Amino acid sequence: MGPGPSDVSDRVLRAMASPTLGHLDPEFISMMNETKELLQYVFQTKNEWTFAVSAPGSAGMECCFANLIESGDKVIVCQNGVFGGRMRENVERCGGEAIMVNDKWGCPVDLEKVEMALKEHPDASIVAFVHAETSTGVESDVQNITKLAHENGCMVIVDSVTGLVGSELRVDEWEIDAIYSGTQKCLSAPPGLSPISFNERAAQKIKSRTSKVQSWFLDLNLIMGYWAGDNKRSYHHTAPVNCLYGLHEALLMVNEEGLEQSWQRHRENHLLLKEGLSDLDIDFLVDSNCRLPQLNAVVIPDHVDDGIVRSKLLNDFNLEIGAGLGDLAGRVWRIGLMGHASNPKNIEYCLSALKSVL
Amino acid sequence: MGPGPSDVSDRVLRAMASPTLGHLDPEFISMMNETKELLQYVFQTKNEWTFAVSAPGSAGMECCFANLIESGDKVIVCQNGVFGGRMRENVERCGGEAIMVNDKWGCPVDLEKVEMALKEHPDASIVAFVHAETSTGVESDVQNITKLAHENGCMVIVDSVTGLVGSELRVDEWEIDAIYSGTQKCLSAPPGLSPISFNERAAQKIKSRTSKVQSWFLDLNLIMGYWAGDNKRSYHHTAPVNCLYGLHEALLMVNEEGLEQSWQRHRENHLLLKEGLSDLDIDFLVDSNCRLPQLNAVVIPDHVDDGIVRSKLLNDFNLEIGAGLGDLAGRVWRIGLMGHASNPKNIEYCLSALKSVL
Repeated sequence: MGPGPSDVSDRVLRAMASPTLGHLDPEFISMMNETKELLQYVFQTKNEWTFAVSAPGSAGMECCFANLIESGDKVIVCQNGVFGGRMRENVERCGGEAIMVNDKWGCPVDLEKVEMALKEHPDASIVAFVHAETSTGVESDVQNITKLAHENGCMVIVDSVTGLVGSELRVDEWEIDAIYSGTQKCLSAPPGLSPISFNERAAQKIKSRTSKVQSWFLDLNLIMGYWAGDNKRSYHHTAPVNCLYGLHEALLMVNEEGLEQSWQRHRENHLLLKEGLSDLDIDFLVDSNCRLPQLNAVVIPDHVDDGIVRSKLLNDFNLEIGAGLGDLAGRVWRIGLMGHASNPKNIEYCLSALKSVL
Repeated sequence: MGPGPSDVSDRVLRAMASPTLGHLDPEFISMMNETKELLQYVFQTKNEWTFAVSAPGSAGMECCFANLIESGDKVIVCQNGVFGGRMRENVERCGGEAIMVNDKWGCPVDLEKVEMALKEHPDASIVAFVHAETSTGVESDVQNITKLAHENGCMVIVDSVTGLVGSELRVDEWEIDAIYSGTQKCLSAPPGLSPISFNERAAQKIKSRTSKVQSWFLDLNLIMGYWAGDNKRSYHHTAPVNCLYGLHEALLMVNEEGLEQSWQRHRENHLLLKEGLSDLDIDFLVDSNCRLPQLNAVVIPDHVDDGIVRSKLLNDFNLEIGAGLGDLAGRVWRIGLMGHASNPKNIEYCLSALKSVL
């Protein structure tokens, strides 16, 4: 019950252990096609460029930036936690210029600040921000930040590593240009892949670049030759076959539950945890209107030793909860209720373990 | 029995299906330490910077080039198959200049040409080449190319995706500076990770770069904070936990057999296949002195339709052999005898299926 990887169901683990097919085997290709359709469903998009990058979420992030940025591009980067800082690193390493919009850790991205930055930098081409900050448990307003960006001629890159499947997210309706996620959060598949989606506008920008993408491994102009929907697949790299089995099975499970039902379950279980924590006098870091249901950042009570509690939980109760990062280290715990692991039984166990240790 | 992914043993598949631990869990960290030691064994090295990149072999290649090249660096790239061409892409996308040394596909890298290139370009800093060309079944002389490079003040980057564990390879004794491999060939683990090793000289070069590595995801200065041997692990990205279980188990199996015994087994089984193929009047593409035992490129007999044979093998015999790539498409088959799949039973089955189809 940490910030991820979340618990993986036996069904997904069993799927991972299926015999390794060749990455060009017709049976495997047909599973890839299904995986793509299921990813389109969870992203709520018809985007043709929807697939899984063959590496963890950090590589999905890099895939977005490396493909959409050319040398000299100005990118407005919103930072309200760890991952905005990583976005800045990505922009700069791609030869872009990062214009930072900073918000306090634990607060959502401030729309007014974004608007100000857009007015101050009319030559910016991209706004990048995090939907669901894993380091703080904050949700930002994807729909309105995207609207602002578009009104000012910018595309958006959205980090929804922790958001996807746990919180409402509608890529087409909200007109998101590029988005990346991870498998190890609310999808409850093992870590190692990064689901990703680009709309037509973003795809066009990538197709008409004047310089090559600096990463060969992440160059979408090449990767799409392998993931494209038609019958001809050109070899780019060897797909992580067994990881894709796991992702495929996890997506089937989301599909069986229903995406909106999954969002609803995450909300309800968050409220259940909140109720129990309030009995223990434990409060949330984040205002209730922008709390993520799947990642609960709670304030460590006074006079309680962070490390001792977490290691007691791990050793005596076989229960992992997350530490705070950066300035929040020692000040908060991060309790994950993600995907398969978001259920009343886990909540009850966590609350009773916490009560006993405290 | 294609060019990889090779068959994965049940034991490794079962290990992949173990419950997903947190990537900072002490139990997982101890498995990582063991994995590192086992990788040092299969690479025959004491290099501290030995670990698995969290993505397939192509990312391992990019990791070597992105870390060792700075803008303007001259790199001598030996091309005698598909993967030399990919190296060139990597050099250029990292801002380097690639000096190409071309050899015919099916031939090893020519030492004299390398020496000539080194003399013509005394300002080159790296020689990059492929140990075991998966596209042609050729082995090049790692030891002597490396010696030449060093005599001329260059480091080497070696692609041993298909070589590792199947062919003799001694990183320390042969003084290889940087090397990458894949899990899905002779290690017989599922695809998705890239074992890699850098010697002290390469590590020093990376530590003293004047510019940042252009990839955040592959920046070894950051990754080594996670894979380093001491107790403090700093989070970089979420490790592909279950893939690492699989790699760990596969490495244990190599260790149990013994590395030299594995090289020997690959040699013996290659000779067994060769004997059977000669009964079918099928010849090898590559001269016997530089044939890879684990990747047998054989000439398709006259008047035989490549596609029909391969699809009959797949559909009627559930047997995959590889097609030729590039100019060799339609002219050769590539029969893999890699790792777990390199055994007399497979050879017999393949020969009898081929005989029946032909």
